[in-house]
Amino acid sequence: MKLLDALKWRYAVKRMNGAKIPVEKLDTILEATRLAPSSFGLTPYNIIVVEDEETRKKLQPHFYNQPQIVEASALVIFAAHTNITEKDVDVYMQEIAEQRGVPVEALSDFAGYIKGAIAHKTAEDLQIWAAKQTYIALGFGLVAAASEEIDATPMEGFDPGAVDAELGLAAQGLHATVAMTLGYRDAANDYLSAAKKVRRNADKLIIKK
Amino acid sequence: MKLLDALKWRYAVKRMNGAKIPVEKLDTILEATRLAPSSFGLTPYNIIVVEDEETRKKLQPHFYNQPQIVEASALVIFAAHTNITEKDVDVYMQEIAEQRGVPVEALSDFAGYIKGAIAHKTAEDLQIWAAKQTYIALGFGLVAAASEEIDATPMEGFDPGAVDAELGLAAQGLHATVAMTLGYRDAANDYLSAAKKVRRNADKLIIKK
Repeated sequence: MKLLDALKWRYAVKRMNGAKIPVEKLDTILEATRLAPSSFGLTPYNIIVVEDEETRKKLQPHFYNQPQIVEASALVIFAAHTNITEKDVDVYMQEIAEQRGVPVEALSDFAGYIKGAIAHKTAEDLQIWAAKQTYIALGFGLVAAASEEIDATPMEGFDPGAVDAELGLAAQGLHATVAMTLGYRDAANDYLSAAKKVRRNADKLIIKK
Repeated sequence: MKLLDALKWRYAVKRMNGAKIPVEKLDTILEATRLAPSSFGLTPYNIIVVEDEETRKKLQPHFYNQPQIVEASALVIFAAHTNITEKDVDVYMQEIAEQRGVPVEALSDFAGYIKGAIAHKTAEDLQIWAAKQTYIALGFGLVAAASEEIDATPMEGFDPGAVDAELGLAAQGLHATVAMTLGYRDAANDYLSAAKKVRRNADKLIIKK
């Protein structure tokens, strides 16, 4: 399926049929999210994958009891780091040094640049900035899912504090920002499955300058 | 090219070669951004496409003089709506009614639901929420560009107020949130073109619960 056809095929599935998606497809979708860019490449987030059904049942009330939480094959939660410090920059420099085979000392200018940018932001601005980066990864995950003909539901509608508590995220310095389920649409029971996709017309959305 | 290969091929290109990308490819990438989902489907943003070189030259200082602003074929700026009101919901309901061929009255529950959600947010929270949605569209655009073998550079590093002023966005109720250039890498002059892609290892990024 060509990419645009895949993007037209996908929609925010509200009912899934409970079938598991093949592990290779889940891995491909997660690898696409891993390959998403982030500001400076700092990746101020983790990606939580919940396949266990019992855990998803416990999470369901925190997602307004949406059925696809349990009917999906996996629930993917993007969680921003709650405390972004110079140490995160040092960890990142170590990653660059290892993956590129360069001495970490050669990265000191880049490290200083990122540390300066972080120091310029308030704690609240850092949270907002980190949360935004997770939306790029969500975008990558949604496109990859469609490309694999796996259904996905992007979700902001949940109680992030309750999700953090249920999964022990806060203790790990994480805060849930946005989520998606992955699975297969239950077309017969999903009122949206036959509905025409609605998007703003290009002549209203796109402004050429 | 398979999607994961395309995502590995792409990187944040810092130098482009000035060549124009075919109009069909630009259209495909913009169509992918148009097909991106947003919260409730409300699409609280516009997408500004700047191909004109003189305008890009004027914008370049507001992007820390990054050369790819002018060396690109197009600069795409995502701009959130600065004033999100019940009227936006009514416009959206009209779009659903037209595109699905249903009476707008049948959508009153959905309209009320979205209006309630908007009324619950402060003006600042609405801005943050709208900005986040633009990052999903950015994600779709970046993946589509890679899939079309078009280079792209995601950019947060610019002076949004200056960009708003230069393009007259504020007067249109818009505020630049994030951007990307589209074009072709100038591999000989881009120090990043030969550098190994750095991403957090999956065992550090992805947490299975």
